[in-house]
Amino acid sequence: MAVAITLLALNLGVQGPGHGALLELIAKQWPAFAAYVVSFFIIGIIWVNHHSLLQNIAHVDRPLLFINLTLLLFVVMIPFATATMAQYLTADDQNAHIATAMYGVVLEGMGLSFAAIFGWSLGDGRTHNPVPAGAVGSAWLRFSLGALAYLGAIAVAFISAPLSLAIIGGIALYYVFERTPPSAA
Amino acid sequence: MAVAITLLALNLGVQGPGHGALLELIAKQWPAFAAYVVSFFIIGIIWVNHHSLLQNIAHVDRPLLFINLTLLLFVVMIPFATATMAQYLTADDQNAHIATAMYGVVLEGMGLSFAAIFGWSLGDGRTHNPVPAGAVGSAWLRFSLGALAYLGAIAVAFISAPLSLAIIGGIALYYVFERTPPSAA
Amino acid sequence: MAVAITLLALNLGVQGPGHGALLELIAKQWPAFAAYVVSFFIIGIIWVNHHSLLQNIAHVDRPLLFINLTLLLFVVMIPFATATMAQYLTADDQNAHIATAMYGVVLEGMGLSFAAIFGWSLGDGRTHNPVPAGAVGSAWLRFSLGALAYLGAIAVAFISAPLSLAIIGGIALYYVFERTPPSAA
Amino acid sequence: MAVAITLLALNLGVQGPGHGALLELIAKQWPAFAAYVVSFFIIGIIWVNHHSLLQNIAHVDRPLLFINLTLLLFVVMIPFATATMAQYLTADDQNAHIATAMYGVVLEGMGLSFAAIFGWSLGDGRTHNPVPAGAVGSAWLRFSLGALAYLGAIAVAFISAPLSLAIIGGIALYYVFERTPPSAA
Repeated sequence: MAVAITLLALNLGVQGPGHGALLELIAKQWPAFAAYVVSFFIIGIIWVNHHSLLQNIAHVDRPLLFINLTLLLFVVMIPFATATMAQYLTADDQNAHIATAMYGVVLEGMGLSFAAIFGWSLGDGRTHNPVPAGAVGSAWLRFSLGALAYLGAIAVAFISAPLSLAIIGGIALYYVFERTPPSAA
Repeated sequence: MAVAITLLALNLGVQGPGHGALLELIAKQWPAFAAYVVSFFIIGIIWVNHHSLLQNIAHVDRPLLFINLTLLLFVVMIPFATATMAQYLTADDQNAHIATAMYGVVLEGMGLSFAAIFGWSLGDGRTHNPVPAGAVGSAWLRFSLGALAYLGAIAVAFISAPLSLAIIGGIALYYVFERTPPSAA
Repeated sequence: MAVAITLLALNLGVQGPGHGALLELIAKQWPAFAAYVVSFFIIGIIWVNHHSLLQNIAHVDRPLLFINLTLLLFVVMIPFATATMAQYLTADDQNAHIATAMYGVVLEGMGLSFAAIFGWSLGDGRTHNPVPAGAVGSAWLRFSLGALAYLGAIAVAFISAPLSLAIIGGIALYYVFERTPPSAA
Repeated sequence: MAVAITLLALNLGVQGPGHGALLELIAKQWPAFAAYVVSFFIIGIIWVNHHSLLQNIAHVDRPLLFINLTLLLFVVMIPFATATMAQYLTADDQNAHIATAMYGVVLEGMGLSFAAIFGWSLGDGRTHNPVPAGAVGSAWLRFSLGALAYLGAIAVAFISAPLSLAIIGGIALYYVFERTPPSAA
C-alpha cells in the first residue's frame, strides 16, 4: 500500500521558474492537491483496516490470495485514477465527468474486494477471533452503505465532477472515524 | 518485490486535457492495461511463493544469496520489459515480436531463478520442514512445465505478440490456482 | 517514510550529454543537493523518533490514527516542497521567498503533528512505559523550540531564501544530536 | 535500500515506436544495462551485510544513528550516480571520466560509512555476539582493500571510463562471494 501512496505523491509538482507567480501556479493546481488529500486518506484507511483484518486470519488459502491480489490491483490503480481525475477535474467537457466516474469505479472495486475479504473471513475456523454474530450484520450494513455511497458518487460525477469528489472525500472522512469491521476492543 | 509493482503502476497514465475524448485515449492504451494486469499477477504470485519458500529455509549461505539476487534482478526488470512490450504490442512491425519475446525471456529468467532456489532448498538440512520426497518430483514437473510454457510463449511471440501475451496471462492464471512448491497443508 | 525518501532522491539528476561540462551542470544544481541533504536528515530523524514513540504505545485508537495519517500527509509532501524550493531557491524574485516559506510551512505542519502524537501518548495507560513526569516538561520545551525555530525560518524566508534553508539545516543538525522525546536509557 | 533499487530500475527504458529497430535501440543502451546490473549487486550486497551487522547490535545510540543516516544518504545517491555515469559513459569527452569518477566517489563514501558502522560496533558491549578478536583484523583488511579498490577505480576513471566500471563490477563480484564482516557460522 506504501506503493500506492508513493505514486500519489508523484502527482504533486509545479512548473519551474519562468512561468509566473508561484502562488498562482499552485492555486491553479487545487484539484491535484484536493485529490491527493482525499486519495491519501482513502488508502491510509484501507491500509489500517486491511492490516487489522489480515492479522486476525488463521490460515491463508488460494481464494484469499486471489481476492487479496485483486484488492491490491485496485489500490495500485488509485494513483493513476487520481492523477487522471485531477488533470480533467476543471475541464469543461464530458471528460471531467468520465475521469471522475472512473475514479469512483476504481474505489468501488477496491471497496468490493475488501468486502469480499471480510466475507471470506466469516468462514468456519478462518480467523483467530471470529467476529461476533451481532457485529457481522452491522459490518455488512456498513460495507453496503460504502458501496452505495461510491455508486452515488459515480452517478453524481456525470452531473458535477467537483461535487462527486466532495462526496468521496466525505466517505473517506466517515471511515476515518468509523472502523470496519468492528474490533472487540 | 513491492518495488517492481510500484514501477509497473508507473506505466499507467493518459495524456492530459486537449487530446480528445478521454475514453478513446484510455481505449487506445489497452495493451498497457492488459500488460499491467498480467505482470501484476505474475509478480504477486512469485512474491507469495518466494515468501513461503524462504520462510522454510534454515540458514542462508552465499550461493543462495547469489541466486536470490539474480531472481530479484529479473523481477525488477519486469516493469521495464512490461512497459516496452505494452508500447510495441500494437505496432505492425518486427519490433512487436521482439518486445514480446523479450518480455518472455525476462519471465523465463525469473522462473529459472526461482526453480534454482527450490533446487538449493532440497539440500540436506537446508529447510525447517523438508519437502516430502513424493512432492519433489511433482514440483520439478510443474517448474519444467512453467519453463516450457514461457519458452512456448517466446516462440509464439514471433508469430503473434497479443497471442503470446494471452499465453503468459494463462500461465499466470494457472499459478494463481496451483501452488509451487506444494505445502503440506 | 521510505516513500518520502524515495521521492526526495527523484529530484536529483542532471541533463544528459550535449549541455556542456558535467561539473558545471552539477554545480548549478547546488540548491537541489543542499535541499536533498537537509530534507533527507529531517525525514530520517522524524522516522527514528516516530518509530521509538510508536513502539511505546499500548493501544492504537481512532484519534491517534487520524493524527498519524496527518503526520504522514505532511511527510509525504516534503519531497514536493523540497523540489519546489530547490527549483526556485536561486531565482531573484518573490517566488524564491514563497517557495522557501512553503517548505517551512510543511515542516511546521510535520512538527506540530508529531507533537500532537506525543501529547496523545501522555494520556493515562496509553504507553507501555510512561514518559517520566520530569521529562514531559523538557520534551514540550523542545517541541516548542522546534516549532518556533521553523516559524523563524518561515519569517526569514521572506528576507533571504538561502539563509532560511541554512536555519532549517541547523534545526535538523540539532535534532540529530538531541533526541525528542527523551528515552530512559 | 529497497528505495535505491527502485530508483535504479527507473533508469531502464527505451524509446517508443518510430525510432527504428528495437534491438538496436536496446543495444545502444548497453551502458545503462551494465550500470544497472553492477549497482544492483552493490546495493544488494550492502543490504545483506548491513542487515546482518545491525541485527547483532545491542543498543542504538546517537552516533550510530548519525553514521547510519550518512550511509543511507550515499546509498540513495547511487541511482543518481549510476544514471549520470550511464548517460555519459560512451561520450568521448572529459565528462565520461568525471561521471565515472563521481560514481566511484559515491561508492567510496558508502564503503567508508559502512566501515564506520563496523568500527562503532567493536566498542564494548555494543553487540550481542562480539566479533572474535582474530576476525577483527581480517575484517579491517578487507574494508581497507575495498576502500583502496574504489580509490583505484576513481583513478582509472580518468583514463578509461568503461575500464573503471569493469573494476567496480569486479569489486561487487568479489563481495558476492566474500562476506564482510565474517560471521561465526
